Amino acid sequence: MVLTPEQQAEIDSQRSSSARTHRVCSSGMERMLYIAQPVLDHGFVRVVDYMGDDSAVVQAARVSYGTGTKKTRSDAALIRFLMRHRHTTPFEMCEIKLHVKLPIFVARQWIRHRTASVNEYSARYSKLDREFYVPASDDLAAQSGSSGRQGRGHTLDAREAAHVLETMKHDNALAYGHYEEMLSTHGKSGVAREIARICLPSSIYTQWYWKIDLHNLLHFIKLRSDRHAQLEIQMYAKALGKLVAAWVPTVWKAFEDYGLNAASLSHAQIQLVKRKLAGESVDMEESGLTAREWREFRDVFEL
Amino acid sequence: MVLTPEQQAEIDSQRSSSARTHRVCSSGMERMLYIAQPVLDHGFVRVVDYMGDDSAVVQAARVSYGTGTKKTRSDAALIRFLMRHRHTTPFEMCEIKLHVKLPIFVARQWIRHRTASVNEYSARYSKLDREFYVPASDDLAAQSGSSGRQGRGHTLDAREAAHVLETMKHDNALAYGHYEEMLSTHGKSGVAREIARICLPSSIYTQWYWKIDLHNLLHFIKLRSDRHAQLEIQMYAKALGKLVAAWVPTVWKAFEDYGLNAASLSHAQIQLVKRKLAGESVDMEESGLTAREWREFRDVFEL
Amino acid sequence: MVLTPEQQAEIDSQRSSSARTHRVCSSGMERMLYIAQPVLDHGFVRVVDYMGDDSAVVQAARVSYGTGTKKTRSDAALIRFLMRHRHTTPFEMCEIKLHVKLPIFVARQWIRHRTASVNEYSARYSKLDREFYVPASDDLAAQSGSSGRQGRGHTLDAREAAHVLETMKHDNALAYGHYEEMLSTHGKSGVAREIARICLPSSIYTQWYWKIDLHNLLHFIKLRSDRHAQLEIQMYAKALGKLVAAWVPTVWKAFEDYGLNAASLSHAQIQLVKRKLAGESVDMEESGLTAREWREFRDVFEL
Amino acid sequence: MVLTPEQQAEIDSQRSSSARTHRVCSSGMERMLYIAQPVLDHGFVRVVDYMGDDSAVVQAARVSYGTGTKKTRSDAALIRFLMRHRHTTPFEMCEIKLHVKLPIFVARQWIRHRTASVNEYSARYSKLDREFYVPASDDLAAQSGSSGRQGRGHTLDAREAAHVLETMKHDNALAYGHYEEMLSTHGKSGVAREIARICLPSSIYTQWYWKIDLHNLLHFIKLRSDRHAQLEIQMYAKALGKLVAAWVPTVWKAFEDYGLNAASLSHAQIQLVKRKLAGESVDMEESGLTAREWREFRDVFEL
Repeated sequence: MVLTPEQQAEIDSQRSSSARTHRVCSSGMERMLYIAQPVLDHGFVRVVDYMGDDSAVVQAARVSYGTGTKKTRSDAALIRFLMRHRHTTPFEMCEIKLHVKLPIFVARQWIRHRTASVNEYSARYSKLDREFYVPASDDLAAQSGSSGRQGRGHTLDAREAAHVLETMKHDNALAYGHYEEMLSTHGKSGVAREIARICLPSSIYTQWYWKIDLHNLLHFIKLRSDRHAQLEIQMYAKALGKLVAAWVPTVWKAFEDYGLNAASLSHAQIQLVKRKLAGESVDMEESGLTAREWREFRDVFEL
Repeated sequence: MVLTPEQQAEIDSQRSSSARTHRVCSSGMERMLYIAQPVLDHGFVRVVDYMGDDSAVVQAARVSYGTGTKKTRSDAALIRFLMRHRHTTPFEMCEIKLHVKLPIFVARQWIRHRTASVNEYSARYSKLDREFYVPASDDLAAQSGSSGRQGRGHTLDAREAAHVLETMKHDNALAYGHYEEMLSTHGKSGVAREIARICLPSSIYTQWYWKIDLHNLLHFIKLRSDRHAQLEIQMYAKALGKLVAAWVPTVWKAFEDYGLNAASLSHAQIQLVKRKLAGESVDMEESGLTAREWREFRDVFEL
Repeated sequence: MVLTPEQQAEIDSQRSSSARTHRVCSSGMERMLYIAQPVLDHGFVRVVDYMGDDSAVVQAARVSYGTGTKKTRSDAALIRFLMRHRHTTPFEMCEIKLHVKLPIFVARQWIRHRTASVNEYSARYSKLDREFYVPASDDLAAQSGSSGRQGRGHTLDAREAAHVLETMKHDNALAYGHYEEMLSTHGKSGVAREIARICLPSSIYTQWYWKIDLHNLLHFIKLRSDRHAQLEIQMYAKALGKLVAAWVPTVWKAFEDYGLNAASLSHAQIQLVKRKLAGESVDMEESGLTAREWREFRDVFEL
Repeated sequence: MVLTPEQQAEIDSQRSSSARTHRVCSSGMERMLYIAQPVLDHGFVRVVDYMGDDSAVVQAARVSYGTGTKKTRSDAALIRFLMRHRHTTPFEMCEIKLHVKLPIFVARQWIRHRTASVNEYSARYSKLDREFYVPASDDLAAQSGSSGRQGRGHTLDAREAAHVLETMKHDNALAYGHYEEMLSTHGKSGVAREIARICLPSSIYTQWYWKIDLHNLLHFIKLRSDRHAQLEIQMYAKALGKLVAAWVPTVWKAFEDYGLNAASLSHAQIQLVKRKLAGESVDMEESGLTAREWREFRDVFEL
């Protein structure tokens, strides 16, 4: 990621100004505010505003419980209780607004999360910059042959990788050159931006402001940092996770324990654990699980 | 509205503390933060957190337009343009969190606005307070006889009003007495709170935290401050309007011009204006409007 | 539940008419269409329209997977895979529209599910009927003393129960009598319906049309048939479950296995299972679980 | 648009089967069900399921109004009343499920409508077809020079258009050739589909199932058939409009009058009409309108 001098100046200006507020502040988030966290070769995420902190979750939960439980539970224990029992509404009481720069193919996966607000850079109004995502050589992999039938398998060997990257770069340059040529009005009319841009590959970068509440952000992170998600969006999800950990550390810890690193057992899997705990030796056939469920079960308990 | 000493102390404590933040601040909102604005006899609205100001709308819109239009439009003109053309997403970039105390029958209308987050005081966990909405005598009105068949007509005469209010107060006291008696465990088991409360009238007050973005808040205000809305929720909508005017004054002014005090003309009404502007005299039969549309048309232009 | 003769005639009329359609049909649902399933003393749920069946979920999933996996997986296996891995969007492709009659206090819990469409009977336009929910004697219980601090404990003894029910019925009759008196225009103006109804207890019945997609309906059923939900809404959730089982039997079976009767294990609980499966004997202190989590853990595996 | 033989066979099979249902049917929609309506060069929209008809809107509205207004209003008049007064919830009671084939750059605008369900063909699971949107020569236009700074101006002359189209076709062929080469495992590993596809231009076609309620569909049509929307998505919006007109003809007529062909007047514009109707001659300066608002005003009334 290389920020333009204008972008860096804007960030410096935002960082240098401050004011007094009566609102709750998150000291961890204040330290990260506006700073671009690099993701992929040209992308970033940066927080441009936020609302609430760990205490805001507690405050909202307490109105539900009224005075009855006011003093009896510590804040952290309450947050953990809410997370464990999927009492999700108090986590909606925190909000975050991010500026994200990301390739279009990542943006297309990202936007599927509907409970968020988005303002995207418009290639109908403005010209796109010459910035394309090109994978690192190590991230170039063959199609996964496993049953999921999506995702990547083994890394390509150096020669094949080099050839692929060369092709990508060449085609990007060609497409962008033609894009500029179509837009150009030197001695001709030029094509409307909204048409010219349809020829650009979906590896080109776009940017948007994205605003979402904490509950839906955690859901995003869980789904998109999963190893079945495409590698590139995993990188963004992980960068977001670091921001959340700085913003609401108690919520983040609870989320790690009860969300990110938790597991769901089916009815049949629960029965299987019961039989195993009772000392029974059960093989796949007897378990009633499919081969895939059996493998997933073994993965959870590292059997 | 009478705040309990505990509530007043909490507000004082929230008002007295402040911290430095790098976030944008709204000076108008900072002045009103946490303070309870009275609504009806025991209700209130108070802002407990907010995110963004007029400039946040502009910032989000500018990412859409890119550098192309950056310098050519003033912030206020851009906000007015966005509002006029129903470019609603930049207005979603501001967020507000309110603490509201309101009668249950108002809460039931309020909650129909789905694009918001809510944490309500739970009468399953905690006992409800002895606070009921009783209309002011002047707000007691007969059923409207007009074609809408909802809403209020003329104010009741003093004697009938007095009788109604006496009945209300008596029944409220009776119901609350029985509620307390059901909960009481003196010499008996007592009834679970979640059952006992079903006997209380929907004029009893509840409270909640309510978080919503600016776009959806303006929509709420437009629908609920309308004269066809029930008087009691109109009072809340108007109190919210004052808060928004302090928070984002430029947005509020644009909303007054293009939302609150705007009017929608049907295709037939547009034709009617055209004929009238051309000097034609058109009566209801010739206009193609129904009697009701004709009346609404005359109302818009005060004909 | 007693249907009025008009309601029964409407249902008979709806049942007796049919037409040919090219759409997919669910034979299980066709048999239940329009018929009121009784819930509580005066309530019901009845399906008035639906869209899709088991095959609609598969159809939507197949567009995602393209031709690649078209033939290799049976429909049921695909539905189970989607459910297990929380691929929720295909389940949004089925839709159901219900007519529900329910007490207002249940309606207030129900409406918290925001991803649905609702049209409720308006007590501003029309007079409410004299129908109140009065619990069966066996459902009258003391406040739960356990740590949850909501919900019901032991059933009341017969004498206390009888007294509570007598009070409820008396107060309902009184409130409804005053409601009718307020509305009456015999020799006076009468009060607007929107005011008079605020004195009625939240045990009075209302009704609405409620439309929701299958994914969100299953989520509703999971949360509201849980034993921590209030008994009365559990009854509705269970009635809905029966309708879903008739409508999309393959989805319902998968939901039972991977949703309703599944369990989520926290990171610490996973570690605990691993240690136990390895033959270690671990007590609560060593487990790192709180007393409550320990109890929940034992409940899952019936230890 | 050319359907594959498999697609045509599937449509024929869907059209040829039918069953009896107790549900309401729309005869207009039954006639169009499953049939692909061509849009652009390779795209289509086709309805694969629907729920409700004009009467479903009325049914939902009637529960709101109760028995009070049951007989006094005809169905059409009620639908027009609801549309005029923005009583939107009854229109949510109809639902439609579409199969859409569309270029990715159109899909990116389309998906911004969040209140809908989507299942898209996954280029991670399956290979994309060699189908690109290439504008008709007449639709190739220069950048609009007007103040909106988006959209198209005059059509390109034939020579420039021919050159642009040649470039597009050449680059599409090149990119697709490289895509296939990357995927190929002849004598090498081949690249995972999820990587290879990032090099394809956003003019390539994708497809999805899209399900939405009638209220949100009308909103989509209003925004996307507007002349400020990109031409290509306008084509889709207009095709959707024809489907809605066949499905719910009474709703569609009301929508034309009060939505599509209606206009919103600002507070200042209302004042202007009033002065003009009073015979005053008002010029732009006196009107308080900006130049753009003045122009928009004149457009509405064709002055």
